[in-house]
Amino acid sequence: MDQVIIRNVHMNGGTSETSYSANSSVQNKQKRAILITRPIVEEATLNVLSKSYIFAAKSKLKRTTIGIAELDCASGPNALLVVSHILETIYNKHYRSGSVMPEILVFLNDLPGNDFNTLFKDVGSFCDELRRSNGDGFGPCFVAGIPGTFYGRLFPSDTLHIVHSSYSLQWLSQVPQGIEKSNKGNFYITKSSPPSVITAYLNQFKKDFRVFLECRSEELVNGGRMVLTLVGRSRSDPTSKDCCSFWELLALSAHDMVLQGAIEKEKFDLFNIPNYFPSPEEVKSIILCEGSFTTNQLETFHVNWDGSDPKENANSVTRNKLESSHYAANILRAVSEPLLANQFGEEIMDKLYGRFRERIAEYAAKGKTEFTNLVISMTKMEKDL
Amino acid sequence: MDQVIIRNVHMNGGTSETSYSANSSVQNKQKRAILITRPIVEEATLNVLSKSYIFAAKSKLKRTTIGIAELDCASGPNALLVVSHILETIYNKHYRSGSVMPEILVFLNDLPGNDFNTLFKDVGSFCDELRRSNGDGFGPCFVAGIPGTFYGRLFPSDTLHIVHSSYSLQWLSQVPQGIEKSNKGNFYITKSSPPSVITAYLNQFKKDFRVFLECRSEELVNGGRMVLTLVGRSRSDPTSKDCCSFWELLALSAHDMVLQGAIEKEKFDLFNIPNYFPSPEEVKSIILCEGSFTTNQLETFHVNWDGSDPKENANSVTRNKLESSHYAANILRAVSEPLLANQFGEEIMDKLYGRFRERIAEYAAKGKTEFTNLVISMTKMEKDL
Repeated sequence: MDQVIIRNVHMNGGTSETSYSANSSVQNKQKRAILITRPIVEEATLNVLSKSYIFAAKSKLKRTTIGIAELDCASGPNALLVVSHILETIYNKHYRSGSVMPEILVFLNDLPGNDFNTLFKDVGSFCDELRRSNGDGFGPCFVAGIPGTFYGRLFPSDTLHIVHSSYSLQWLSQVPQGIEKSNKGNFYITKSSPPSVITAYLNQFKKDFRVFLECRSEELVNGGRMVLTLVGRSRSDPTSKDCCSFWELLALSAHDMVLQGAIEKEKFDLFNIPNYFPSPEEVKSIILCEGSFTTNQLETFHVNWDGSDPKENANSVTRNKLESSHYAANILRAVSEPLLANQFGEEIMDKLYGRFRERIAEYAAKGKTEFTNLVISMTKMEKDL
Repeated sequence: MDQVIIRNVHMNGGTSETSYSANSSVQNKQKRAILITRPIVEEATLNVLSKSYIFAAKSKLKRTTIGIAELDCASGPNALLVVSHILETIYNKHYRSGSVMPEILVFLNDLPGNDFNTLFKDVGSFCDELRRSNGDGFGPCFVAGIPGTFYGRLFPSDTLHIVHSSYSLQWLSQVPQGIEKSNKGNFYITKSSPPSVITAYLNQFKKDFRVFLECRSEELVNGGRMVLTLVGRSRSDPTSKDCCSFWELLALSAHDMVLQGAIEKEKFDLFNIPNYFPSPEEVKSIILCEGSFTTNQLETFHVNWDGSDPKENANSVTRNKLESSHYAANILRAVSEPLLANQFGEEIMDKLYGRFRERIAEYAAKGKTEFTNLVISMTKMEKDL
């Protein structure tokens, strides 16, 4: 596996409305995605449970342990939501069949800078609540925190049965090297980016996603399942508006501040965001090339920048645009501010994101403001059997 | 297994000289105990590695995973010290024999209120340092945090090969019930405690230690090893000075404050510390009764209240008594203050522990001020083979 330089991409901490875990818009957006992808996670869980050979290697004297990993879990109210769905699916399946529930080991992963203290305080009440609503037959369930980047090994070999991650894999391990000088004036790929920049971004995503698949393939048991949701795009053109426009608006807002003298031109020119929003075809192709997984399902769905559902909006009164752009700016601020503050300084963040909100409002008046999400469900191939 | 009411016993947090993790006397005392018991931990580790049947159940295609648990690890500089010794022992053994090193999964356990954020920041540099000093052949090693009380299940069945804990098992899961009225004026067992109080303390320890052994026996593989260090006593009399006098001095200091009107008499009367300092015979007897472990070694050793080595002191110039009692008071404050602050209020802690330091100085002028430590090395019996 190639050595990757890991850039610590943290979401905004704290408890303000622009923090990641306390911002209700961020949490609503993520919760919406989790609920949309719930049937896919449930299918994957039931599929793992149906594969008796997964558990056959264990001695009959020993109780089976199912390993579940939630990658990049953060510490907000959604950190344990998918795990909770998976556990209930396992419990219901065993309850219906009258069999003893297996032991479960849940690994909650995030970067070492995540607020594990807050997360662990929630874990206690989470386990109590599951036991209360499901009865004493539920469990035993053990919960561990694993600090580290998922662009490297995190778990021992053949430990995991189900891996889940939501809104994480669009984050690259680093800004693609060598693009600083050729992507001046942009924070990400835009119509004005030269082909070399587009290639560099794609290659970094290919490299990172491949490393991710290689690592998880070691850690998952044969037949184990993985469900990933990430921000992507639906069109093959990597400069299409359905993926790039929000970072373009952020770059324009920062440029406004360059013109005002509040941001140095050189710092502005050198800055790029370590994101890549892949198309379904790109994702499929990397999975195929890497060779450890079969793709069971790959779908796209949309969530508005402000965290609301585009389908709901279409059938209701037009939402207050100003309020909506406020929510959208906060969501995008929660995930990008640490990077921008590091480059341009903490002190101008309020002003920069204020300008960003105005730019979003102008843009929203003209057209769609939607994130395109990809959800991929895959199975680790049974090559060693 | 009986349900136990868990009292959250936390060490003092923060970074002051009376905090647990930042206090150099506390850390020196613990480090001394860790170094004294190092050969015992090393023997246990090598013994596990020599038991080929432990690893025989694994498929030949799969790499073996060794599970190591450090219970009640806290977050100071010693949190990873024993784990580091165990890893180096494993590495040296495999390096010498030319075999591939197994994968290692380290579980760091403490109560959910522990500072896991600080601990996890240290984990990254810990792994880097091990790889740097041992070379690329070292590892892979994975580190997980497990929040929860060890008086309950923490890990899946048959997951652990080596369990270690230092200075934890003298803490009971709760103050023995029903002693409040009969142990007035004392914080722990003293010469003036009625037999019912002594029995209640012993029974609580028996119950807790049995639950602990039952849980670990499920979690350890057959032939797995456990090394525990705890504060105990060397004499069979549970009121002997070699274990009780420091809490007696703390009770006397609090009583001084009752006389001054700074502590309410009723609160003082009702307070007891959830500690028990067992004799080697008591520990042996509980292990024998529970029946899952054989005792390989049970030894006692001494460390001064101020964290220094009694043997070193005997051969050197008498230490400055005032300085020594200052260190001793800080060590005992770091482990007891949260309980006392909860009962008597934060605001009088400086005054109370100031008085405690004076009482320790008076006491130290007359005789020995040593903790008696027990170290027990045991093996999970191979009953299922």
